[in-house]
Amino acid sequence: MAMPSPSYTITMRVEVPASQRATSMLVAAVAEAGGAVMGVDIAHSTTTKLVVDVTCDTVDAEHGDRIVEALNALEGVRVLKMSDSTFLLHLGGKIEVNAKVPLKTRRDLSRAYTPGVARVCLAIAEKPEDARRLTIKRNTVAVVTDGTAVLGLGDIGPAAALPVMEGKAALFKQFANVDAWPVCLDTKDTEEIIGIVKALAPVYGGVNLEDISAPRCFEIEARLREELDIPVFHDDQHGTAIVVLAALLNALRVVDKKMEDVRIVVSGVGAAGSAIIKLLKAQGARHIVGFGRQGALHRGEVNGDEYRNWIAQHTNEEGFTGSLQEGLVGADVFIGVSAGNILTGADVARMAEGAIVFALANPTPEVDPIEAGETAAVVATGRSDYPNQINNVLAFPGLFRGLLDAGASYISDEMLRVAAVAIAEVVSAEELNSAFVIPGVFDHRVAEAVAEAVRAEAEKYLAEQAGAAEEAVTA
Amino acid sequence: MAMPSPSYTITMRVEVPASQRATSMLVAAVAEAGGAVMGVDIAHSTTTKLVVDVTCDTVDAEHGDRIVEALNALEGVRVLKMSDSTFLLHLGGKIEVNAKVPLKTRRDLSRAYTPGVARVCLAIAEKPEDARRLTIKRNTVAVVTDGTAVLGLGDIGPAAALPVMEGKAALFKQFANVDAWPVCLDTKDTEEIIGIVKALAPVYGGVNLEDISAPRCFEIEARLREELDIPVFHDDQHGTAIVVLAALLNALRVVDKKMEDVRIVVSGVGAAGSAIIKLLKAQGARHIVGFGRQGALHRGEVNGDEYRNWIAQHTNEEGFTGSLQEGLVGADVFIGVSAGNILTGADVARMAEGAIVFALANPTPEVDPIEAGETAAVVATGRSDYPNQINNVLAFPGLFRGLLDAGASYISDEMLRVAAVAIAEVVSAEELNSAFVIPGVFDHRVAEAVAEAVRAEAEKYLAEQAGAAEEAVTA
Repeated sequence: MAMPSPSYTITMRVEVPASQRATSMLVAAVAEAGGAVMGVDIAHSTTTKLVVDVTCDTVDAEHGDRIVEALNALEGVRVLKMSDSTFLLHLGGKIEVNAKVPLKTRRDLSRAYTPGVARVCLAIAEKPEDARRLTIKRNTVAVVTDGTAVLGLGDIGPAAALPVMEGKAALFKQFANVDAWPVCLDTKDTEEIIGIVKALAPVYGGVNLEDISAPRCFEIEARLREELDIPVFHDDQHGTAIVVLAALLNALRVVDKKMEDVRIVVSGVGAAGSAIIKLLKAQGARHIVGFGRQGALHRGEVNGDEYRNWIAQHTNEEGFTGSLQEGLVGADVFIGVSAGNILTGADVARMAEGAIVFALANPTPEVDPIEAGETAAVVATGRSDYPNQINNVLAFPGLFRGLLDAGASYISDEMLRVAAVAIAEVVSAEELNSAFVIPGVFDHRVAEAVAEAVRAEAEKYLAEQAGAAEEAVTA
Repeated sequence: MAMPSPSYTITMRVEVPASQRATSMLVAAVAEAGGAVMGVDIAHSTTTKLVVDVTCDTVDAEHGDRIVEALNALEGVRVLKMSDSTFLLHLGGKIEVNAKVPLKTRRDLSRAYTPGVARVCLAIAEKPEDARRLTIKRNTVAVVTDGTAVLGLGDIGPAAALPVMEGKAALFKQFANVDAWPVCLDTKDTEEIIGIVKALAPVYGGVNLEDISAPRCFEIEARLREELDIPVFHDDQHGTAIVVLAALLNALRVVDKKMEDVRIVVSGVGAAGSAIIKLLKAQGARHIVGFGRQGALHRGEVNGDEYRNWIAQHTNEEGFTGSLQEGLVGADVFIGVSAGNILTGADVARMAEGAIVFALANPTPEVDPIEAGETAAVVATGRSDYPNQINNVLAFPGLFRGLLDAGASYISDEMLRVAAVAIAEVVSAEELNSAFVIPGVFDHRVAEAVAEAVRAEAEKYLAEQAGAAEEAVTA
C-alpha cells in the first residue's frame, strides 16, 4: 500500500545510447519498477550517447536502489550517479540569519553598532519593557528540544533533532512571519533544561517546546509557564489538541451532533492525549474515556503518574473498566494518539451511527483509514495522503503570531480554545463535508484567523491581569 | 571637541510659514546651533504653510533638544515632532531568521519537514559528523554574553546587551556570510554559563564570547575551549589582540623598527591587555611591561589573580617597578586598553624617537590623539573620527569564516597570529603611511584574507591532530 512520495525523490544521471526512443525507454523502465517519474532532462549529448537526468519519486531508499538496478539492466544503459533530493535540500541547513538594517557605510555602522547602539542599550537598561520595542524579542520564538522524542524516531539526540527544528523555524517564518530559532539541548536533565530556558529568555518573546519525551515535558512546561514572563507552549501537546478540537468541531457539524452529548474515546494518555482531553473538556465535552495500554483509565486507579491520575479523576464518570475495543462499542468519537494498527474496520463498525474516527498515529494510523471509512462518517489522520490531515502547522504559527502581537506573558487554556475555534471557522458552510473538516496546510486564511483570535484573547487576558493588579493595590 | 555624529541623527518635523526663504532659514538656524544638516524634505504644503522634515546630526541628546529650541524660537516656526534615527532603526530589532529552502507546496513540505526530514535526522543519529553537512551547524556561531561588560557601559544585563549582539550578528553576515545568533544569558554564574553553552553547542559551529566581565571571562573561555569540540573565542580579548598586532606590524614598518627590539608599554592588564601581551610575544616581542592601576607588573608581585600573575612572570624581565609615566620614558610603543585621559602629550614626548601610540580606551582615549601626534610617529585609537581605527570588526567575521570552512574544533594561538598578519598584509607598501597602518572596516579584502589564512592554519592543525592520534594508535 506504500506509494512513491516526494520525501523519497531521487535523481539518476544515466548514460544511454543516442536514439529517438532513449528517454521513453527510461521512463517506461522507471514506471515498471514502481517509480513515479517527475522529470527527464538531457544533461549532455554526443553523436552516439546521451546523458540524461531522470528524477522520480520512490517508496523508500531500498526502492530507489531497485530502480537504479532496473535501469542498469537495460541494454547499453549505465547509471552514473544517484542523488537524493531530500538530502540535497538539507545541505548546509534550511535557515539563515539576515540583517534587516543596512550596514554599507560608516553612518549605518554608527547607528546599528557602536557608538550609536549604546544609547539603545541604555534605554533598555533604564526601561526593561522597551526590549520588546527595540530588539528582536517581540518577534522571536525559541524552538526548544532535547531530542528525546523526535517525530516517531524516539531519543535520537539534539544534533539529529536539528533538521526538524530548522524545518519548524522555516514554517514559523513562512506561515506567520515569526522569527524562530532552534535550541537543541545536549542534556536530558529536567532541572537543567528549565534553568537553561530561563537563562535564554531575554532574547525571546515566546518558547515552543518540541519533541521532549513524557513525563519530563509536563514538568518542564508547567515550571516554565510558572517561572517565565513569556508564553511557553509544548507543541506536541497543545498544538495537536488545538487541531484535533478544530477538526472535531467541524466533524460534529457534519454528523449533526453536539460536543456535550457525544461519547468520546481517546486512545493514548501521554503528552498529546492528556492535552486533547483537557481542551475537549474546555469546549464542553462531558463524556470522555481515556485508554492506555492496559485499558480504560478510571477513578479506582492510582498509579503514581500525576498526569494519568488527573485524567482518571476528570473523565470516565461512569467508571468504565474494559478494553479499548470494548469501550468503542456505541461511541461517537474515536481519537487515537497512540500506536499503529491497534484497531480493525470491525471495531469501528461497532461505534454509533455517524461515527467520527481520528486515527493520528504516525506514520501508521491506529486503524486503516480506508477500512474505517466503510462505516465511519468522518475519518481523519496525521497523513497527507488521505483527506482531513490533522497537522500542527495549522496551529503554531498563527498562535505565536497572536501571542507576540499582544505582547503576551502567558498562554491560557482559553487562548488554545479560541485558536481551535478559529481554525474550524475557516471552513465555511459551503466548503464543509466529511472529507474537508479541516483546512489544508497551505490555506493562508488559517494563520491569520488564529493570530487574530489569539491576539484578542491575549489582550483581554492582559487587561484582566492589569485590572486585578490594580484592584489588589486599591484594596 | 565633540562633533555632530551619525549616531545622534534626529529628524524634526517643522511647520513654517510658506516662503522662498523657509528652508534656508531652517538650515541656517540648525547650523548656527551646531547641528550638521543631512537633508531637508517638504512633507506637506498649503498656500500659507510648509511642513518640512529636517534631518541633522547632533553631538548628543541634549544638543538635539537645544536645536529643537532654536527652531521653535524662530518667528512663525513650530517643531511638531522630533524622532531619533538610531532608535527608529532599532524598532523591532536588527536581524531576522529566514528559510533558505522553498516551502510553497506539499512537495516542498514533505522534503524540508515531515515525513522526509526523518531520514535526514536518522542519517545524523547514525553518523554524528554529518551534522555539519546537513544542518546549519557548519555556518552558525553563537554570540554569547551575560551583559556584564557591555561596551563602556558595564553591567547592564542581558536584555540591554541584546542590541549589541544583534549588531554583531548583522556584521557577521555582512562581512563574512556567517549566520550568528545572540545568546544573552540571564545568569552571571560562571559554572552555569559554562554548562549552558555546552548544552547549546549542538546547533553551533563556533562560540563568540562577548562583553563578559573579567576575571569570569577567562575561566569561561578556558573551560569551554577545553570541554567543547567547536572553537571558542572571546572577542574582547583576542579580537582586540589580533587587530592591535596587525596595526603594530604595519606601524613598525612605518618607523622601521623590529618587533623583537622595541620596548612596549601596555596599560591595562585585564581581558584585552593580557591577550594582547600573549599575542605580541607569539609574534616575537621581547620587551613588554604591563601596567595596572598601581604601576608596573613585575616578578616580585604575587596578588592571587592567575592572569595578572602570568603577565608578571612572562614580561618585564628587567624588573621595572615604577609608574606608567615613568615606564613610558624611552619606550617605543604604548598600547592602552585602560581608561580615558590618563596621559598627556608631555608623557608621549618622553618616549623614544618614532614612538607608536595606540590609545584604545573608548569613548575617551588614554591620551588626546591630536596631542600625542605632536611627537609620536604613529597614533591609533578605537574611534572612527581619527585615522587608524582599531576595530574588532576587522577580525571576527573573517576569523570565524575560516574556522567554519575548515570545520575547526579548536582555536590555536597560531590561528590568531596568522589572522593578524593577514590583516596587516592587506595594506600594501604603496598604501602604507602613518595615517593608514590598518585597513578600513569596509575594506572587503580583509575578511577574505583573514578567512583564507585562518582556514589554512586550521586545516594544518586538524591534520597534525589526526597525525598525532594515528601515531598514538601505532605506538
